[in-house]
Amino acid sequence: MTVRRQTGEGTWEDVKVLRYKAEGSALFKDVTRQLLFGSAALGCELRYFEVQAGGFSTLERHEHVHAVMVLRGRGRCLVGTQIFDVAAHDLVEVPPLTWHQFRAAAEAPLGFLCMVNAQRDRPQLPGEEDLAALRRDPRVAAFLAG
Amino acid sequence: MTVRRQTGEGTWEDVKVLRYKAEGSALFKDVTRQLLFGSAALGCELRYFEVQAGGFSTLERHEHVHAVMVLRGRGRCLVGTQIFDVAAHDLVEVPPLTWHQFRAAAEAPLGFLCMVNAQRDRPQLPGEEDLAALRRDPRVAAFLAG
Repeated sequence: MTVRRQTGEGTWEDVKVLRYKAEGSALFKDVTRQLLFGSAALGCELRYFEVQAGGFSTLERHEHVHAVMVLRGRGRCLVGTQIFDVAAHDLVEVPPLTWHQFRAAAEAPLGFLCMVNAQRDRPQLPGEEDLAALRRDPRVAAFLAG
Repeated sequence: MTVRRQTGEGTWEDVKVLRYKAEGSALFKDVTRQLLFGSAALGCELRYFEVQAGGFSTLERHEHVHAVMVLRGRGRCLVGTQIFDVAAHDLVEVPPLTWHQFRAAAEAPLGFLCMVNAQRDRPQLPGEEDLAALRRDPRVAAFLAG
């Protein structure tokens, strides 16, 4: 379909609201995933993720880059060892092999676009040593604890 | 920079507002261009175009696909011989070699994201015969006339 209209906050005609990941495959809370653009003619996909208030995406890293624009709501993100407050239309670039996580505010959802290469590696999850290293920074430890 | 915040409606930290095209290279009116994401690691670029009230982008076509999301304002777009009203967060996909043009409303700007392959062909402009064929449909003729 040439045009797919927004039907509500974070929903579109002919766009399915998908599971973020298989349950039990990784730690996350209250996240949905939608594929907005992903035709074979494009070298990238544009996805929309929505994290409900109090929810969070998986802490992970990968070789491929994330190009993110917040679309609605607000929250915080961890990129490497930096923590940022983010709100509508802010841009976030996650470099290769950089730990990252998105958390919605306690009282607002966080909806964001994420552009990624169509061909990309699978996310890596942190091991105990990775987590210990991240938690050495008290601000990062507090972020990860929610 | 990892995070670049929105600084106003359609402007961001460290993102330059660029000319849409060189003056005189093609017909357009009151359009700016910004490159939001375009690192070498990504197979695509994410651009933001803003058409001022009453303005319009170039009528053109190309092999590469446009994946568009309206970010703010409202207007209309021509895709092939179809005309669509569009507003915030509507999605538009422009297939290969399909004539297209975006027009802002008379009293509102039209700002939109456009994802394209980093490697892409140059736009083709319509010749007299192409324009005559498009104008055979009176609705398309009215759209092109503004």
